[in-house]
Amino acid sequence: MQEGKSPTPERIWQILTGFQMSAAFKAGVELGIFTRIAEGNRTAAAIASASGAAERGLRILCDTLTVLGLLNKQGSEYSLADDTAFFLDRNSPAYIGSITDFIMSPQQKGGFENLTAAVKNGGAVADHNASIDPESPMWATFARSMAPMMFPSAQIMASGLGYEKAAAIKVLDIAAGHGIFGITVAQHYPNAQVHAVDWRIVLEVAQENAQRFGVADRYYKIEGSAFDVDLGTNYDVILVPNFLHHFDIPTCEAFLKRCHAALKGDGQVLTSEFIPNDDRVSPPAEALFSLIMLAATPSGDAYTLAELTSMFENAGFSQNEHRPMPGMPQHWLASRK
Amino acid sequence: MQEGKSPTPERIWQILTGFQMSAAFKAGVELGIFTRIAEGNRTAAAIASASGAAERGLRILCDTLTVLGLLNKQGSEYSLADDTAFFLDRNSPAYIGSITDFIMSPQQKGGFENLTAAVKNGGAVADHNASIDPESPMWATFARSMAPMMFPSAQIMASGLGYEKAAAIKVLDIAAGHGIFGITVAQHYPNAQVHAVDWRIVLEVAQENAQRFGVADRYYKIEGSAFDVDLGTNYDVILVPNFLHHFDIPTCEAFLKRCHAALKGDGQVLTSEFIPNDDRVSPPAEALFSLIMLAATPSGDAYTLAELTSMFENAGFSQNEHRPMPGMPQHWLASRK
Repeated sequence: MQEGKSPTPERIWQILTGFQMSAAFKAGVELGIFTRIAEGNRTAAAIASASGAAERGLRILCDTLTVLGLLNKQGSEYSLADDTAFFLDRNSPAYIGSITDFIMSPQQKGGFENLTAAVKNGGAVADHNASIDPESPMWATFARSMAPMMFPSAQIMASGLGYEKAAAIKVLDIAAGHGIFGITVAQHYPNAQVHAVDWRIVLEVAQENAQRFGVADRYYKIEGSAFDVDLGTNYDVILVPNFLHHFDIPTCEAFLKRCHAALKGDGQVLTSEFIPNDDRVSPPAEALFSLIMLAATPSGDAYTLAELTSMFENAGFSQNEHRPMPGMPQHWLASRK
Repeated sequence: MQEGKSPTPERIWQILTGFQMSAAFKAGVELGIFTRIAEGNRTAAAIASASGAAERGLRILCDTLTVLGLLNKQGSEYSLADDTAFFLDRNSPAYIGSITDFIMSPQQKGGFENLTAAVKNGGAVADHNASIDPESPMWATFARSMAPMMFPSAQIMASGLGYEKAAAIKVLDIAAGHGIFGITVAQHYPNAQVHAVDWRIVLEVAQENAQRFGVADRYYKIEGSAFDVDLGTNYDVILVPNFLHHFDIPTCEAFLKRCHAALKGDGQVLTSEFIPNDDRVSPPAEALFSLIMLAATPSGDAYTLAELTSMFENAGFSQNEHRPMPGMPQHWLASRK
């Protein structure tokens, strides 16, 4: 404490009321406020009328979103901040508003409703654990809602694979979800074949996306758990995007041995993870991801580079190249035998 | 957008996951983490053992609280930030951890569960509106949990009343809740009499506090709604702490006329409110309070100084002195006939 200066409860209040800010964000997305403003509605009255809301409610919501930095306010007129225009206008190709459907889904929020129990227990309590249920519709919601957030990361990964354009690479996409990672590789490499592993209800979403992006004729489904199902062999590329963090280290190592066996001698595994520094408290977004794993899984975590490297080494890989992406909390790791 | 620079979803992600940070804070308070650290437990293992939690859960929670700035981490040892030591160690006289009981109560969170509906409706939807139910146990929870947060504000207000120490002032405390405001005046003025208005179940809490702080012999209860009950007359001081924001302007004006009639000629009304600037988007904490009123009340708001001044003028008051408190989102307004 600085001498003679009493601390204020400002920061505590801000953290405590964070759930109110999440709710404001969700209401803004659900009412399409950002799109309405992009379309030229500027005053609370105009935005309210365009979005079917009451003016009082809309004014308070837009003021809140202004305090949060998502909107600007000049006099009584609102406009979009740059990131808002880019990511939250439904007419923007980079629109990611749908992520609220997953991040604030009852299952995901459920894990946080009684976080105290998860801390005591050292992992998600059974009731809340939808992560490991193959029939959970949560993963279809995930696949549908999180895809847009993954495009930039998928582009960067696919651009860095380093094959000749015409190479007939064989690709395995683990827990493909929306399928965006494998599909993006197929778009970059017109002769690539993609084999996508996931539960049945999730692969339906991946298949839809493969169709939508014109790669369905080179897209193959492997239904089942990535731990048990026959993965096939002779892959040039195995994608492991946002998968390892759901499991403990021994489970990850056992799984990576399966990848090792399925990979060609000169093949590569591309892993996407939230990778905090060794202190586990920086950078913020990477470090905070651990809490989601505490709330949602029995024993998952955001692993450090040292931990991931050790897992890969124990599974037989000898090269691991870390590829962070500027401004994005997810990093890539490229591993070879 | 800065030229050549793509926006990142960093801020959006941070707002969207705010509810997870509130949950981490709540878990920290419920497990007494801050108190355990103050008592000398420094590592995740030691804090876990002292608070009956699993080490994995505790480590992830403490890392999260470190990212939020509430803890510091050196190597594998955690310590308390200054504001945390002051406000969140149960052995600190300024402990305010109990505010989670109200701010994150099912009723208060309920209003935010479907904020979209409140925005559309222009106010809390009926199901969620516990604010105006006299029998709602929410207000007893409020009274018990929010008292500690009010001490500094009550001290500043009572110190500024300006009477001779021995003055036998007659004080009315509107919607007294925990009673802290009136009780603090009674402590400052040993001959003061305090009349506290609130619903029955809430006045029980105020009465307990009057006892605890040694002013029960000068403490009188007026059970009922501040809008209907006989308030009495000839008051030197009428306290209206955190009350007006629950209601619309006409309701506030009608109520202030009742205060005007109950006040001595040279008496003063002391009002505590979150008072945003005319732009309604600054300062942050004051401006954000509007959203709580949207979620929790049919037509309340965080009123600007201009709006409050106009209400008081329309109720017959001619002087209004604005007294903000540095670092605190609640301001005082002193009004005279």
